[in-house]
Amino acid sequence: MADLDALIEDLVAANRILANENVVDAFGHVSVRHPVDAGRYLMSRAKSPELVESADIMEFTLEGAPCNADGRKPYLERFIHGALYEARPDIQCVVHNHSRSVIPFGISGEKLRPVMHSCATIGHEVPVWDAQDAFGDTDLLISDMLMGRDFARVVGNGTCALMRGHGCTVTGKSIREAVYTAIYLELNAELQWKASHFGKLKFLSPGEIEKINSRLGQARPGEGYDRSWEYWRRRAGIASKRG
Amino acid sequence: MADLDALIEDLVAANRILANENVVDAFGHVSVRHPVDAGRYLMSRAKSPELVESADIMEFTLEGAPCNADGRKPYLERFIHGALYEARPDIQCVVHNHSRSVIPFGISGEKLRPVMHSCATIGHEVPVWDAQDAFGDTDLLISDMLMGRDFARVVGNGTCALMRGHGCTVTGKSIREAVYTAIYLELNAELQWKASHFGKLKFLSPGEIEKINSRLGQARPGEGYDRSWEYWRRRAGIASKRG
Amino acid sequence: MADLDALIEDLVAANRILANENVVDAFGHVSVRHPVDAGRYLMSRAKSPELVESADIMEFTLEGAPCNADGRKPYLERFIHGALYEARPDIQCVVHNHSRSVIPFGISGEKLRPVMHSCATIGHEVPVWDAQDAFGDTDLLISDMLMGRDFARVVGNGTCALMRGHGCTVTGKSIREAVYTAIYLELNAELQWKASHFGKLKFLSPGEIEKINSRLGQARPGEGYDRSWEYWRRRAGIASKRG
Amino acid sequence: MADLDALIEDLVAANRILANENVVDAFGHVSVRHPVDAGRYLMSRAKSPELVESADIMEFTLEGAPCNADGRKPYLERFIHGALYEARPDIQCVVHNHSRSVIPFGISGEKLRPVMHSCATIGHEVPVWDAQDAFGDTDLLISDMLMGRDFARVVGNGTCALMRGHGCTVTGKSIREAVYTAIYLELNAELQWKASHFGKLKFLSPGEIEKINSRLGQARPGEGYDRSWEYWRRRAGIASKRG
Repeated sequence: MADLDALIEDLVAANRILANENVVDAFGHVSVRHPVDAGRYLMSRAKSPELVESADIMEFTLEGAPCNADGRKPYLERFIHGALYEARPDIQCVVHNHSRSVIPFGISGEKLRPVMHSCATIGHEVPVWDAQDAFGDTDLLISDMLMGRDFARVVGNGTCALMRGHGCTVTGKSIREAVYTAIYLELNAELQWKASHFGKLKFLSPGEIEKINSRLGQARPGEGYDRSWEYWRRRAGIASKRG
Repeated sequence: MADLDALIEDLVAANRILANENVVDAFGHVSVRHPVDAGRYLMSRAKSPELVESADIMEFTLEGAPCNADGRKPYLERFIHGALYEARPDIQCVVHNHSRSVIPFGISGEKLRPVMHSCATIGHEVPVWDAQDAFGDTDLLISDMLMGRDFARVVGNGTCALMRGHGCTVTGKSIREAVYTAIYLELNAELQWKASHFGKLKFLSPGEIEKINSRLGQARPGEGYDRSWEYWRRRAGIASKRG
Repeated sequence: MADLDALIEDLVAANRILANENVVDAFGHVSVRHPVDAGRYLMSRAKSPELVESADIMEFTLEGAPCNADGRKPYLERFIHGALYEARPDIQCVVHNHSRSVIPFGISGEKLRPVMHSCATIGHEVPVWDAQDAFGDTDLLISDMLMGRDFARVVGNGTCALMRGHGCTVTGKSIREAVYTAIYLELNAELQWKASHFGKLKFLSPGEIEKINSRLGQARPGEGYDRSWEYWRRRAGIASKRG
Repeated sequence: MADLDALIEDLVAANRILANENVVDAFGHVSVRHPVDAGRYLMSRAKSPELVESADIMEFTLEGAPCNADGRKPYLERFIHGALYEARPDIQCVVHNHSRSVIPFGISGEKLRPVMHSCATIGHEVPVWDAQDAFGDTDLLISDMLMGRDFARVVGNGTCALMRGHGCTVTGKSIREAVYTAIYLELNAELQWKASHFGKLKFLSPGEIEKINSRLGQARPGEGYDRSWEYWRRRAGIASKRG
C-alpha cells in the first residue's frame, strides 16, 4: 500500500525531527493511527527515536497488543497512545516526550498557557496529570490501559497534557500537526518561564487562540504545518521526498 | 542589472544568516527596497528563510501586490514591510522575526533598552505594538495595510518595535544594518533579561547611544556592519563573494 | 582477556560520551573496578576525557598507586575513585565531573532532589561535601586517601554527592549506570533550578524513587540503561560494537 | 625566528579557540607581548578572531603605533592592550571580549567572584571600569592611551576587569593562561548568575584561591593550562602542532 508506506515514511521522519529538535532524547515515542483500520496504530519498537527506521514500525491494537511483533519489543508506555486513539476519534497522531522546559510546569502548579501566536495550538491552558492522584506511588510510567484511560480523561478535548515529574503528551489531527505542537509546547514553556520573571503576563486571549487555530486549519498546501515540517526535515538531514 | 543581482545575492545571504543565528526559524522574513524603484521592494516567496534562493525573490508594490508572481505565493505578513517603506523613505531593509528572547518583553510590560555598546542601534527604548489595541481579537498577524500602517506608526522614527505575543520587526538603512540590529536586538533581550535578575540596571545613556551610532555610521569599509556581516556569512557557510 | 578488553572499550566510550554530553570538559574522569581483582581499578592517564583511547587506560591499587605506569601520569584526584571502591564493594564505576548545573547546588545550601522519573537514580536527596569542613583552606582537590575517605563517608549508601565549589561524583553498579546517573544528575540540577523559580516543588516521593529504580534494575537487555547507552554512543560518534 | 613563529602560531590558535568557545564573536581581540622586545606586542589586523591567520598578525609599540602595517588596519581598541603591557611587566597576553555572561555583572553592581575551583584565576573579586566615571558620555570604546591607562589602573594587580556596558579584559602570564581565564571568567559569570537565584552563596575563600593558583602555577607540562589548551585546540579543529 503506497499510502501506508508514505505514512510510515512520515512517522520515521517525525521520530528523527523530534530528536533533532530536542523534544525527545533516548526516550519518548510517536505513533500514528492506522490509515485504514481506525482500531489500530503504528509505532516503532522500543528504540531511541533518533535511530528509528521503517523496519522498526510495528502495528498495535488500541489495547496495545502487538499485531506483528516478529520478536520486536514494544515501548512500555504504548498505552498512552491507544487510550487517546480510543477516547478521541479525531486524533491521528500522538507524541509522548520529556522535553526539558515542560517539566517545571508539571511540578510547580504554574499553569502553562500560550505566550505567542505560534504556540496557540497548545490551547488556552494545559492540564496536568499526576499519577499520584489515582494510583498513589508508582514508577510514574503509564504501563496499562487503566492508567492510559485516566490520562486520556485529563487530556479531555484538548491537544495536550503534562504529566507530573515525567513529561507531556501531545496529539494532532495529523503527524505534522502533532509534531508542530510538540515543538511549540516546549518553546512556549521555555518562553513563559523566562517571561514570568517579569511578573504578570499577557497571554493569548481565547479569541486570539481561536482565530490563530482557525487560520492554521485552513492553511493552503505549503503553508502552516507544511512549511515548518519541510524546515524541520531539512534541519534533521532528511532528504527530499521521493517523486 | 549587476546592482540588482548583487542586492538579491545579499538578500539571500541575509535570509540564511538570520536562520543560522537563530533570529528566524521556519517563520520570519526579510526584504529590501528596490534599488531603482523606491516604490517597490524585494522579498522571498513564502518559504523558510534558511531555504531561500535567488529564484525565490519576488518584487512587490508598497501595497503588497506581487509584480512578478509567476505562481509563487507571497508571505501573508508582507504588509509589515510595505507599510514601513511607505512611512520611512530612509528605510532600505526590513526584518520580521519571532526570535526567542524578545517575546518576554512583548508580553510583560518590561521595557527593552540597550545594555551594551554593540546593541545601541536598537535605540533608547523599544516600543511595543499590540494588535489588541486597535483591532481587538485577531490572529495577531499583520495581514493588510491597515494593520501595517498602525504598526509603522508605533515604530515611528526608531529602528524597531516589538509585537505583543508575536515577535518583532527591525529596520535598517541597508541589509547589513538591519541584519546587525536584528541579531543584537535578540542578544540585548537575552542579556537584559539575565541582568534584570540583579535588580536595577545601568543602561546606555542617550549620549552614549548617539556617539556609538554616530561612529557606526562613519565606519570605514571592512569595519562595523561589514565586519560582522563577513563573520556571519562565514558562520552560515556562505562562500566568499564573486570577483 | 576478552572481558578486560571489552570493559576497557566501554570505559573509553564512557569518557567520550561524558564529554559529548557536556558532563566533563577538559577536566573530569571516569574509572571502573577491575573485573578480576576487586582491589584494583582502571582509569585513563591524566588527559581530557574526549581524547582518551584504550592505550591511555592504567591500572591502580585502591590506594591510588599505579600498577603499570609506563611513564603515563595519573589524574591527581584518583583518590576519589579508590576511596569509593574501598568503602563500597557494590560500586563498579565512578564518574567525577564539574558539570555546570550542579555547581549552584553545591554553594547555596539548596538541596538537590529528583524532579522527574528519569532522574530517580540520584536518590532522595544529594549530600554536599565541603573540603572546608574537615580540611580548612585547600585547593579543593581530593589529593590523598584521607580526603577521599572523608568524601566517601558523605556519599554513604547513596549513588552520588556534590563537592562545594568543585563539582560532583557519581557511582554505579556498572559503567552504563554511572554514566546514566551522571548525565541525569546534571539534567535534574538544570530542571530543579528552573522549576524553583515557581516556588515550592513536588519532588518524587521516596516510594516513587524506589519503584522507578526497582524497574530500572530489572530492565531487560536493550531497555533502561542499555537504550540510553546506545543512544549516547551514537551521538558521540562511536561506531557499533565489534561482532 | 622559530620562537616568534611558534608564538604567532599560538596567537592564531588563541583567536580561533576564543571564537569556538563563544568568548569572542565578530568582535574581540587577543594580543601577546613580543618575545624579544618587551616594548612591543603582536595582534591581528582588524578582523573577526575566528578568521585570523598568521599573515594577519601585526606588531605594535605599546602606544599602539603599527610597526609593520603594510596596509593592514589595526583594531580601534588596541590601546587596552598597550596600556596593560605598559603598566604590568608580568603580563604577556591580553584578551578583550564581550562574552555574554559577564555583561550583567558590569551593569548591575553585582560583584563577580569565583564560585568554583577552576575559576580561581579570576581573583577574589573582579573590578568594574565605567567609561562614564572619568570620560562622561563616550562610545564606550577605549580608543586612546588616556582611556587605556585609566582602565589599566582599575585592573591594578588583578588578572581581569569588567567594562560597564561593554565587556571585559583578561590578562595572563602566557597565552594559555589568559585564554584559560577568559573562558573560565565567562563560565564563572554564568554559574554565579544561576546560583544567585538561591540567595547567599559560599564563594572560594582567599586562602582557597591562593592555594589553587599556586598549584596551577606549579603544574607540570601537560597539566593545568596545558591540558585545557590541548582540549580547546581539538574542539576548535586545530591540527596537532608540527614536529
